[in-house]
Amino acid sequence: MRYVYPFREGDGSDRRLLGGKGAGLCEMTRLGLPVPPGFVITTTACKRYYEGRKGLPKGVMKQAAAGIRRMEKETGKKWGSPRDPLLVSVRSGAAISMPGMMDTVLNLGLNDETVAGLSSSSGDERFAWDSYRRFVQLFGKVVFGADDSRFEAMLARARKEEGADDDSGIGAAALKKLVRAFKAECRRASGRAFPSDPGEQLELAVRAVFESWSGERAKVYREKNGITRDIADGTAVNVVAMVFGNMGGDSATGVVFTRSPGDGSRRLYGEYLVNAQGEDVVAGARTGSPIAELKKAMPAPYGQLERTCARLERHYREPQDIEFTIERGTFYLLQTRSAKMNAAAMVRTSVEMKSERLISRDRALARLDPAMLEQLLHRTIDPQAARGARRLAAGIAASPGAASGEAIFDTRRAAELGAAGRDVILVREETRPEDVPAFFEAAGILTSRGGKTSHAAVVARGMGKPCVVGCSSLAIGTSSFRAGGATIREGDQITIDGSTGAVYAGRMPTVEPKMTEHFRTVMSWAQKAKRLGVRANADTPEAARLARRLGAGGIGLCRTERMFNGADRIGTFVEMIMAPDGASRARSLKKLGALQRRDFAGIFRAMAGLTVTIRLLDPPLHEFLPDPAELESRIRRMESGGGRGLAAARKMLARARELAETNPMMGHRGVRVGVTYPEIYRMQVRAVFDALASQKGKAARPQVMVPQVCGTGELEHVRQIFDEERRDAERRHGRRLNVAFGTMIEVVRAALVAGDLAGTAEFFSFGTNDLTQGTFSFSREDVEAKFLPEYVEKEILERNPFQSLDADGVGRLVRMGTEAGRKARRGMEVGICGEHGGDPGSIRFCHEAGLSYVSASPHRIPIAIVAAAQAAIAAGAGRRSRAR
Amino acid sequence: MRYVYPFREGDGSDRRLLGGKGAGLCEMTRLGLPVPPGFVITTTACKRYYEGRKGLPKGVMKQAAAGIRRMEKETGKKWGSPRDPLLVSVRSGAAISMPGMMDTVLNLGLNDETVAGLSSSSGDERFAWDSYRRFVQLFGKVVFGADDSRFEAMLARARKEEGADDDSGIGAAALKKLVRAFKAECRRASGRAFPSDPGEQLELAVRAVFESWSGERAKVYREKNGITRDIADGTAVNVVAMVFGNMGGDSATGVVFTRSPGDGSRRLYGEYLVNAQGEDVVAGARTGSPIAELKKAMPAPYGQLERTCARLERHYREPQDIEFTIERGTFYLLQTRSAKMNAAAMVRTSVEMKSERLISRDRALARLDPAMLEQLLHRTIDPQAARGARRLAAGIAASPGAASGEAIFDTRRAAELGAAGRDVILVREETRPEDVPAFFEAAGILTSRGGKTSHAAVVARGMGKPCVVGCSSLAIGTSSFRAGGATIREGDQITIDGSTGAVYAGRMPTVEPKMTEHFRTVMSWAQKAKRLGVRANADTPEAARLARRLGAGGIGLCRTERMFNGADRIGTFVEMIMAPDGASRARSLKKLGALQRRDFAGIFRAMAGLTVTIRLLDPPLHEFLPDPAELESRIRRMESGGGRGLAAARKMLARARELAETNPMMGHRGVRVGVTYPEIYRMQVRAVFDALASQKGKAARPQVMVPQVCGTGELEHVRQIFDEERRDAERRHGRRLNVAFGTMIEVVRAALVAGDLAGTAEFFSFGTNDLTQGTFSFSREDVEAKFLPEYVEKEILERNPFQSLDADGVGRLVRMGTEAGRKARRGMEVGICGEHGGDPGSIRFCHEAGLSYVSASPHRIPIAIVAAAQAAIAAGAGRRSRAR
Repeated sequence: MRYVYPFREGDGSDRRLLGGKGAGLCEMTRLGLPVPPGFVITTTACKRYYEGRKGLPKGVMKQAAAGIRRMEKETGKKWGSPRDPLLVSVRSGAAISMPGMMDTVLNLGLNDETVAGLSSSSGDERFAWDSYRRFVQLFGKVVFGADDSRFEAMLARARKEEGADDDSGIGAAALKKLVRAFKAECRRASGRAFPSDPGEQLELAVRAVFESWSGERAKVYREKNGITRDIADGTAVNVVAMVFGNMGGDSATGVVFTRSPGDGSRRLYGEYLVNAQGEDVVAGARTGSPIAELKKAMPAPYGQLERTCARLERHYREPQDIEFTIERGTFYLLQTRSAKMNAAAMVRTSVEMKSERLISRDRALARLDPAMLEQLLHRTIDPQAARGARRLAAGIAASPGAASGEAIFDTRRAAELGAAGRDVILVREETRPEDVPAFFEAAGILTSRGGKTSHAAVVARGMGKPCVVGCSSLAIGTSSFRAGGATIREGDQITIDGSTGAVYAGRMPTVEPKMTEHFRTVMSWAQKAKRLGVRANADTPEAARLARRLGAGGIGLCRTERMFNGADRIGTFVEMIMAPDGASRARSLKKLGALQRRDFAGIFRAMAGLTVTIRLLDPPLHEFLPDPAELESRIRRMESGGGRGLAAARKMLARARELAETNPMMGHRGVRVGVTYPEIYRMQVRAVFDALASQKGKAARPQVMVPQVCGTGELEHVRQIFDEERRDAERRHGRRLNVAFGTMIEVVRAALVAGDLAGTAEFFSFGTNDLTQGTFSFSREDVEAKFLPEYVEKEILERNPFQSLDADGVGRLVRMGTEAGRKARRGMEVGICGEHGGDPGSIRFCHEAGLSYVSASPHRIPIAIVAAAQAAIAAGAGRRSRAR
Repeated sequence: MRYVYPFREGDGSDRRLLGGKGAGLCEMTRLGLPVPPGFVITTTACKRYYEGRKGLPKGVMKQAAAGIRRMEKETGKKWGSPRDPLLVSVRSGAAISMPGMMDTVLNLGLNDETVAGLSSSSGDERFAWDSYRRFVQLFGKVVFGADDSRFEAMLARARKEEGADDDSGIGAAALKKLVRAFKAECRRASGRAFPSDPGEQLELAVRAVFESWSGERAKVYREKNGITRDIADGTAVNVVAMVFGNMGGDSATGVVFTRSPGDGSRRLYGEYLVNAQGEDVVAGARTGSPIAELKKAMPAPYGQLERTCARLERHYREPQDIEFTIERGTFYLLQTRSAKMNAAAMVRTSVEMKSERLISRDRALARLDPAMLEQLLHRTIDPQAARGARRLAAGIAASPGAASGEAIFDTRRAAELGAAGRDVILVREETRPEDVPAFFEAAGILTSRGGKTSHAAVVARGMGKPCVVGCSSLAIGTSSFRAGGATIREGDQITIDGSTGAVYAGRMPTVEPKMTEHFRTVMSWAQKAKRLGVRANADTPEAARLARRLGAGGIGLCRTERMFNGADRIGTFVEMIMAPDGASRARSLKKLGALQRRDFAGIFRAMAGLTVTIRLLDPPLHEFLPDPAELESRIRRMESGGGRGLAAARKMLARARELAETNPMMGHRGVRVGVTYPEIYRMQVRAVFDALASQKGKAARPQVMVPQVCGTGELEHVRQIFDEERRDAERRHGRRLNVAFGTMIEVVRAALVAGDLAGTAEFFSFGTNDLTQGTFSFSREDVEAKFLPEYVEKEILERNPFQSLDADGVGRLVRMGTEAGRKARRGMEVGICGEHGGDPGSIRFCHEAGLSYVSASPHRIPIAIVAAAQAAIAAGAGRRSRAR
């Protein structure tokens, strides 16, 4: 088994085997760029290391020794030589970059003999002992787990004794003393003598790098960044001949981006340090000089750097992040990788590289990280201000954007103050549908419980309100919360950042988002490239207008119950639920119908010419009533205080209890309510027809869909109401009213009998949130907080299926349902609505499954459009490569 | 379109088209038996009637007129003749018998003129006017909806005036007056004159019969008896020439069973009335004489009756229920149908008809109604005593058998008294898992809420305890309930009948079931005929023994959590849940492990030589803790009373709240608990291995299965624990311990990825209860009480999918999962466990889907065995008929 590849022999495109850094070094060597000699130990060796209970696989060190011999030939230096010793760096490097998460050892090969050789070959004793000191310190820390702060303390003492400003002021004699002391420290930590044999040093360092793959830092990083085993399952080790940026005034080391990662502008961006090793730059111990100054200081190497940057960008067709070292005037490249940049820079470089003809339009789109686009769409906290600010806590970033206001704990009060024009942040342990009126009036929402798909998160995203959830370190009382040692009382100003999850005390300055020309350009490309329709989940005319501005091609999900939660109507809705007889229910429904007609009319106007899909009432009725426990305590207070409203409260409690359910998610809701209270759906359908009839000029194309359907019986039942109301409305308005009738497929059984449903439904809309719940028997609310994180951590599930559509289970149902539906009704429109509609991975699935459109929250529309374009491009590329 | 078939022309096997009664009349005519002439108007005509907004389909009355003309020829009488008029009866008759549920009109064709003809042709004026009176009364009631009690009142007055004991004592003159008065009453009810034209009479009567199909009584009957549209969708109308059992002392009418419906013995059983019409027998206005007496009274017709009975039994190979009339010594048959009989009679006739070589063994099995077998297995209330007893209320018959005892309302007290040897009926609004200890000790359970699959029902059935649920008319307080005007206080004796749902005050005498020789015979036939395995759901050695005695071939579902609910262990289990650290949890688990090992050992002994499938812990942990609301009020009482146990109660409340879930059915349960608390599953698996190791002689074959699995990750996780424990146990016991490892398929996703699961699981067991919940997104607890009945009533769903497996949805997943599993692992054992395992329709599905076995509650085992045999027979017959 081959585990070792010299840079000349490695395949620079095989990042999986060689790691990112190794592949880059091989590729640059192949391009003839000035890379020091060296070799890569593959990620396979690391994988074997873990499979084999942490033994280095057979042959690795033998192959490494052969690699060292080859380096001796290329450098003319000798491994362990007391005259001109070959020194190496040992660097980690996984398939996916995990900057700073794993370990590296420099100057390996030094011992009491070779240090003398380095001294004589370089003619600089201080340099040789400085390198030795660095080696022992890093090796001790990485291999023996010694405490770095003890080394640093000794170093500080030495600086003081020498009267030096920085480490470069410590003389050779002091350095010798330090090396001895450092070695003693290593012995303390490891219980063994410091290894002097370079071969043993190398083997220990390789093991240490492999170990760092499973270190806590690295594991957490992988989890947070979704780096699963199928993407990267071990680190490679790069063994590189040392070149020295710390060999005096004509030596330097630096990092440079080929374009600015902050704004994407086309200029070298980075910094360098004279007479220093790479670690100094990274550690920030010394402040580097701007890269532009290198041009004056070392014109020839700078020229080489500039040419190299251009060459690498041309080669990789991607801005690069480069490490280089200049040893006594000679320029060396130590690393290249694709530059990480912010959203603005990402977008700008796409546009500019395309116009420079460096990349095609497809590549300009494919290279975007769609999720990052969100940064460009929301009010953000002024980065200047954020730096020094007092962060109270960090929760889950649930709905992006920053908001400031008074912390208000009571829902009613929040709604009142908000309606009165005050900026309010609603602070709750968690929220329920009855809190929704306050959402409308609040500037932002903060909760201490729940995940990305908790009630607060979903509702806030639907409204485009900033929201932080699951901020578990907040201890929320009835009128204050404690966090980070501070107490925030009712009315105190706080700021939340729904893009990062941060919570601050006080009012932070924020910056308006601006939609740049570059952004508009990539969005127009994406609109052209995508095949999949992108529609919005929007329940209000405002949300509809926002979605349309962001590129939505219609509304895929308009949730009618959100409308009932407005402060001016929830009362009427509760009245309807509490109605003692049919007549009073009819009166309440009539009032609600008028409101709903107006709402629909507004949305239709905002969406003139586009499709608007309206979902009939979905939640169970008890969700609109107050929580029984809360009602009980209210009643208890009334009983001791005085009787006003007591009878009504008791009646409501009785009704709330009567409607209560053990598993409301699977209870009396959706079409089941529509069947038992047909008058509700009738009212809603009528409002749709009447709103359509009221439109002047170009009208929207409304569709009505039925939630929670499990079979044809339910659908036919509603269809009959729909047809009756259509006939009636057409008669009343004296004209045809075209409204399509369809069904949600969100109950598993609906996907299984989709062929039958297509006989009655003219379109399908997959509700993949609920479908995921039914397929996994996971109650989102319960499992996201409880065991899902553990499942993902233990790799029992690859990812949270509520965030990314589960292709094997839920996806299979989507494919089955789509196929059966279209078999029964050719060319039928089939979309998905819900959280997955804004997730790039899920959008790719939808493209591949041949769906007609996805529907996403307004603020995810640009993401969805770009992801849809990428899916089309990837599928095209796949087709092309298969055709070849 | 042909709507009318004279009896000579109708195909006697086409009950669907002609209805049961019509087909019988045609068949008997074809056999040359003495049936009066007549014709059938088909069920298709009825269907068209409803499709066409209740217009008689074109041509029906014309074809009927032709039928009448033919009858004129055969009888020699004349339709509307004032000399010798043809009179007819107009009788309903659907494909499935619905006795007494639809309408019939007799003596049609009479009017003021024809009555004179009847009078002269019969030579009996009184008879003629009596017939006319009967006609007007019945026609008025059926066609015009006149109030029968008003007719009856007039009749009673006439009897009084005439000084008559019964109607036969009313003279001709009085009858004439009555006819006039009845006609006036008809006019009052209908607003029109009484029709005198026989053709018009006939048309109105046909319409009325069609209308009676959708009458309230008929609809309710169909619903209760599962008569869906695909089985019968309309009634036929039989127009039969009248023959008169009321033509004097040589005339009679009667009903007879060819074998006794009470015990199945082979003798004519029935009664007859001299000088009467059929209605008199049915209405019970006069008490008939035993049929044996007819032999003496009218020997010739009796001989004809005997021969006819034998002939019909031979022809139909089924005991018959016959209506006959003797008109002046001439014997006529008016109806034959298969006799309805009780379970004992059903079983006995099967055995005896087989030994008489009247039927084959397959037919002897196929004719059984499996559900009725339950009657034979349980203690029942003495029918003698039940007749006069005071029934307090009627609930849902949830677990069969009768039980008497003190009504006890508090769970703890019920457990204590029961343990002390007292007979206790636990009375609760509903039950929770924490009530299970009381189930063990109670004689029976009575609840006022919940359906057939509520917690109380499922647990009681599992234990074989009599149980009545959903007895909504009980107003249950803390120590008494009110029902039927009475108040039952704590400690009062009550009796419940879990086979009928009845609740009685006091202690009722009960009868032991006896397993007759006939029963044993049919069971042994069924065991041989079936292909499907039948196993039991049993959690205790007692239940296992019972199941084995009833014919179970193993245990398909042993629910381990039931064991934790025993009074001697629930405390330890709660201790485990409340454990503050790993060490104390380990201590509790050790104690539980020892108990569980003993339980398993007992079950294995009872099932020596058979398979025992053990399901690891399934319910969420919070189900074992008291209800938070109850805890809260307990704490409030403690706070005011004194502090003992207060701290512990508060701690428990906190834990209960922490564990509480919004949708527990889809929450942290099953394997999800097994993943987060692996020590629980480890303890259980170890107990299985140790219990197996302790077996002497022929051992049971244990299997372990994992609940709530949604994918391979979970299964592999548990498999690892299982393999470790096996290795450890084999080392400790020094021998191989064969235990199969499998998975439940009860989460939809598991069915979708079954092929993958079969890589790790050695067998599958479909949990169709949960699978139904997931497929429909129906929470059983919530929807059975709320909208499911309405769904079935409105025909939105054909039947309750929790009672009868839904073939289109759930069944499709079962087939998909089975196929994929067996593709990955050839010949894999695949079963189903849960409520459906005892339902004949579902068992048939399981046979057809090729499953290995079904598992059912012990008391359903005989039902399952017979249903499995029937499925095999039906499939064989299907194969044979296809092969032909």
